[in-house]
Amino acid sequence: MANPTAAMLVIGDEILSGRTRDANMYFLAGELTKAGIDLREVRVVADDSDGIVAAVRALSKSYDTMFTSGGIGPTHDDITADCIASAFGRSIDVRADARALLQAHYDRSGQELNEARLRMARIPDGAALIDNPVSVAPGFTVENVHVMAGVPSVFQAMVASVLPTLTGGAPVLSQTLRVMKGEGDIAGPLGALAVDFSDLSIGSYPFQRDGVYGANIVIRGQDGARVDAAMTKLAEVFG
Amino acid sequence: MANPTAAMLVIGDEILSGRTRDANMYFLAGELTKAGIDLREVRVVADDSDGIVAAVRALSKSYDTMFTSGGIGPTHDDITADCIASAFGRSIDVRADARALLQAHYDRSGQELNEARLRMARIPDGAALIDNPVSVAPGFTVENVHVMAGVPSVFQAMVASVLPTLTGGAPVLSQTLRVMKGEGDIAGPLGALAVDFSDLSIGSYPFQRDGVYGANIVIRGQDGARVDAAMTKLAEVFG
Repeated sequence: MANPTAAMLVIGDEILSGRTRDANMYFLAGELTKAGIDLREVRVVADDSDGIVAAVRALSKSYDTMFTSGGIGPTHDDITADCIASAFGRSIDVRADARALLQAHYDRSGQELNEARLRMARIPDGAALIDNPVSVAPGFTVENVHVMAGVPSVFQAMVASVLPTLTGGAPVLSQTLRVMKGEGDIAGPLGALAVDFSDLSIGSYPFQRDGVYGANIVIRGQDGARVDAAMTKLAEVFG
Repeated sequence: MANPTAAMLVIGDEILSGRTRDANMYFLAGELTKAGIDLREVRVVADDSDGIVAAVRALSKSYDTMFTSGGIGPTHDDITADCIASAFGRSIDVRADARALLQAHYDRSGQELNEARLRMARIPDGAALIDNPVSVAPGFTVENVHVMAGVPSVFQAMVASVLPTLTGGAPVLSQTLRVMKGEGDIAGPLGALAVDFSDLSIGSYPFQRDGVYGANIVIRGQDGARVDAAMTKLAEVFG
């Protein structure tokens, strides 16, 4: 059976300007693969309402689940929650349970729950909160969209909160063979193998080190015996 | 005057499976910012024809320029060139000048220009070649789309070949102030500053280190005097 599909939307000027190197896409990709959910598409957009709303609508419609990263903090450039509400035609306001979480947190740390911080309790109507054990301010789920923070430690904690609630498929198994030949010498036999094992995904990822060409051949699939069989054949050819 | 806009399409199962951490987006984002070209959107898609063709059409229409990364090698999973041809309704075949480049390269290294390697000389009709000083097999430009390799060293060399041919705008200048306060304490004054300097982009990027909260406040704009003025004001408030 085909695995559930997912998309990710990374929100933030800092990624597109090259100031910050995104870490969340790489993390989520690995976690979803382990959970048997196929990440099919990622988009990165700026802190711009129209762009965020359009991407949320497109991706949430095309895939079973989607995840967003970034833009749910207290500052003026954090507009994700409003964009999600807008994408689904829902109202958004400070919600009592989210406010109580923040109130308790700031009471403990002796800080004021001021107007800016209260923005983090603004939740679209009908959303479920996502637990944030790192810095308390919650993420939320609306329909099939999981809205999470951009700070990697918080993002990762929220992914850990959400993943057990999702139904995954069979984890995708993968095996890799490192072949110290140029891809041009690998391509012919590899293409033939890909035809014989068309139920598997067979990829070639070339590298060059100290002037020597090589490639990692990665065989992926849900059926371990088939992956083994393809890898055995591959090793015969290139071993 | 508004800067030219750009998008990037990263093509490859290995990024979406979490096997490989993308490096090309981060590199291109930094180079475009220096060149005064606004990277507005990035998409990552799998090695799937329909997805690639749709993304190329959408992004090339929405932005002044677009760049692709990945899928132009000799193996069966390298389908980018065909997808680009298809996206623009152009034919594609082995081209004499691209073939001559490869022939000379493999003659020098005593390797055979076999059928697989010859795939790398397949160029959509009417494209301009992009020089590849690292491993010779060229990228190409069709209309406003620059098609480049996924291997980071080759991608970077191709970006260096293409960038001088593009018309950039004023480079975006940026200054950063590190404030050792939680974003909730920063947000109010920062929002006011953003209103006073609405011609600039002012972002807040929070971090947490050893239990202490802080944020990097980044002010960006094309007018250095305005960026200076905003930074002076910011330092007065948080210095």
